[in-house]
Amino acid sequence: MSDHAIYPLDIVIKKRDGAELTKAEIEHFIHAVVLNGEQKLAEARGEKPATLSATDKVTDAQIAAFLMAVFQRGLSPEELANLTTAMRFSGETFDAAPLHTFTVDKHSTGGVGDKSSLLIAPIVAAAGLDLSPSISVPMISGRSLGHTGGTLDKLETIPGFDTQISMARFAEILRECHASLVGQTPRLVPADRILYAMRDHTGTVESPFLITASIMSKKLAESLNALVLDVKVGSGAFMPTYEKSKFLAELMVSTGERAGTRTAALLTTMDEPLGRFSGNWMEVWECVDILQNRRHPMSADLIELSNILSGWMLYFGGKTATPEAGAKLADDILRSGAAYKSWLQIVAAHQGDTSIFNDPAAFHQPKATRVLKASRAGYLAGMDCKEVGWAVQRLGAGRAKPGDPVSAHAGIESHAKLGDKVEEGQPIFTLFSEDAALLDEPYRMLEATVEIANEPRQKQPLIREIITKENIKG
Amino acid sequence: MSDHAIYPLDIVIKKRDGAELTKAEIEHFIHAVVLNGEQKLAEARGEKPATLSATDKVTDAQIAAFLMAVFQRGLSPEELANLTTAMRFSGETFDAAPLHTFTVDKHSTGGVGDKSSLLIAPIVAAAGLDLSPSISVPMISGRSLGHTGGTLDKLETIPGFDTQISMARFAEILRECHASLVGQTPRLVPADRILYAMRDHTGTVESPFLITASIMSKKLAESLNALVLDVKVGSGAFMPTYEKSKFLAELMVSTGERAGTRTAALLTTMDEPLGRFSGNWMEVWECVDILQNRRHPMSADLIELSNILSGWMLYFGGKTATPEAGAKLADDILRSGAAYKSWLQIVAAHQGDTSIFNDPAAFHQPKATRVLKASRAGYLAGMDCKEVGWAVQRLGAGRAKPGDPVSAHAGIESHAKLGDKVEEGQPIFTLFSEDAALLDEPYRMLEATVEIANEPRQKQPLIREIITKENIKG
Repeated sequence: MSDHAIYPLDIVIKKRDGAELTKAEIEHFIHAVVLNGEQKLAEARGEKPATLSATDKVTDAQIAAFLMAVFQRGLSPEELANLTTAMRFSGETFDAAPLHTFTVDKHSTGGVGDKSSLLIAPIVAAAGLDLSPSISVPMISGRSLGHTGGTLDKLETIPGFDTQISMARFAEILRECHASLVGQTPRLVPADRILYAMRDHTGTVESPFLITASIMSKKLAESLNALVLDVKVGSGAFMPTYEKSKFLAELMVSTGERAGTRTAALLTTMDEPLGRFSGNWMEVWECVDILQNRRHPMSADLIELSNILSGWMLYFGGKTATPEAGAKLADDILRSGAAYKSWLQIVAAHQGDTSIFNDPAAFHQPKATRVLKASRAGYLAGMDCKEVGWAVQRLGAGRAKPGDPVSAHAGIESHAKLGDKVEEGQPIFTLFSEDAALLDEPYRMLEATVEIANEPRQKQPLIREIITKENIKG
Repeated sequence: MSDHAIYPLDIVIKKRDGAELTKAEIEHFIHAVVLNGEQKLAEARGEKPATLSATDKVTDAQIAAFLMAVFQRGLSPEELANLTTAMRFSGETFDAAPLHTFTVDKHSTGGVGDKSSLLIAPIVAAAGLDLSPSISVPMISGRSLGHTGGTLDKLETIPGFDTQISMARFAEILRECHASLVGQTPRLVPADRILYAMRDHTGTVESPFLITASIMSKKLAESLNALVLDVKVGSGAFMPTYEKSKFLAELMVSTGERAGTRTAALLTTMDEPLGRFSGNWMEVWECVDILQNRRHPMSADLIELSNILSGWMLYFGGKTATPEAGAKLADDILRSGAAYKSWLQIVAAHQGDTSIFNDPAAFHQPKATRVLKASRAGYLAGMDCKEVGWAVQRLGAGRAKPGDPVSAHAGIESHAKLGDKVEEGQPIFTLFSEDAALLDEPYRMLEATVEIANEPRQKQPLIREIITKENIKG
């Protein structure tokens, strides 16, 4: 790395004292983290691990101390950009250059019932496919985590759909369909995998700096020309306050722009499940309905959000003069059936069985159902959306720990949105599970969190604020 | 420990966020640290380790994250007292109750040429032995570390002197001699041994809170009625500023008093080596000269400091009405030969060969000598005392890492004190080593750091400030 010896411990101490780390120091630390991670994997496989020099050796304890020091001291914009870049290039990256296309992706910080990726990918792909200039969506997605759903778990309910493809096949699908949705490969951004596991284990997950480096290193490894971020605020968001969500959004935009990727972040409301369904297959079903131009009233917020996010992507990609015009174009693409055509093409390219889209409702086969009804007349006034997400998880749709299986058919249907007038006994949520025994606890959780008031309460708009490089200091 | 489940990770997160940990949480964390340390030792011995419950499991990474969180967030007086107590009782402790004596010890934060323990122990023992009430000095000491010397290394230059005795024998010697000087047993304060090794490895050594818990847990495990702390300030001190030394002194006094131990801390100047000699045997020799009433002019500061520290111990022990009267009593005991009598008794009880005290100068057998002379006439105006300590270490008197051997005869003799008038060519330091090849670097270090000026410079008094519970808030 560098000519003079840099010891990981010296880097820990420098950060501990709040001094600014150089690019070489950050690169060296990440380099050592990956080397030591590889050494552990080799040991676990019973292989003889490589001999590391003293400057390349770093222990779990030192990594933990570094993460806690960063948690407490924060990172300068320069340090954050350098950390993100070092992580981004810590393993394999996706190289989009041979595709001669404008690459753009969307990332959400995680929500309940948020299946917008399943609409956005085909909308933008349809625009990128049919019109010049070429745009593609190389979307590397994640799994359900905590109270939030995961795109991969949703896609994998489609029989045959393969999310674990090689980077070469990913490139082929992108060339052919202008969008592909895949899981992370073990070789992509290994530093994040190691650091994330360590953060989870040492109480250093919630640092906006470390969250930014984690998200942005993985997104930038997709070789993106532009990125649109959906940063959730409200009771269902990971970040506990509006200010913290906004700070995170600013860090991510600043970090993306420093890496040469046009980046915008939309602060969007997550006070209730997005759309009609929350649960893996049901979310695909809801999207297929929309793509087939059956717009359920409960899906209105989802369609609005997907169009606005797609609009920014189309704007960045040069399709429209403004993001607003982009959102209009997205809706046109949806209504025209072009997005559905792209969707079928993408699913087929991933070996998915598209015949089930002929009757998506029929594919929904939960074994047990229960309806939560309004206890009295009034207005649906509030709920802890995170609690709703946990209820969905406990129905079987999410996982308690990485690697656990998820149920395709577990989840909930929303029958009312915040602010809606409800009559006594009117259904609020229908709960679905593959195991009747799993209904009780989520039912009680939902019952406890749903609030009905005499008067409608002020509802937050879907889009709260938009962060771009023009309105931040970083 | 406690009825409801406490996970170490929750404790890390709570401290990370700056919340105050409860007594039960701190006890549980230290309990887990020790259990996991024992498990590792068992594994290293090839034994089947005990199965730990999920709440008792803590990893190195979690310990490191905890230490860095404490480093950044600090501890409240209550938390610090609880941490110190939990560490103090993490293993075996010394129980002085059967001795029916007032126990008092002295601890220094580490200096160059500071052999005051070797005078203080026999002074206070002599007072405790001959006069009522009974006082004893159960002194558990350390080894040379970094640029500072260690009492054990000095004592072990006396042929036969055994510092590694059992707690039972320690009690016997105390009963007989009213002072014993020993090394730490592996079973005493195991939490500190584990945490100190981890701090050294993760850049969390320099926290005044963690330093206090480390020092005070070990001292309080001696079952002390009183403790006098010698906290060094100046260029040879571990703490980088006067304010930081004072803060540490206040933390230690507050922690001692909360544990029911009368505690005073003296902030003392360490801008040059204390006394005449710095080096293991030579320091014993200097003390024997003083105990035998041969007072070399270069030893004046050492005698003054030893008397003042002894004075506080005698005052706490009820021998005198004031610390000042205690210092006068200490000097009387020294001059009367009673301290020397105690010294011979203590050394003999530890199997040391007292015959070498008949001609201590003759026992000094370095193989190589070099003299650093004043480059010009003027006043000895300054030196980096830490650099002088490192020079002593590199002559062979100290160690680069724990477990390294130390030389008995390496070291330096000081021929002038700060403020002294010197002539060109007058000796400033004589360097001694058992290996001529080790003289060059220390000679250059000393040459570079010694400063001679035209005018005498303001010299700091030996005692800068005295911290007791009466003058701190904690």
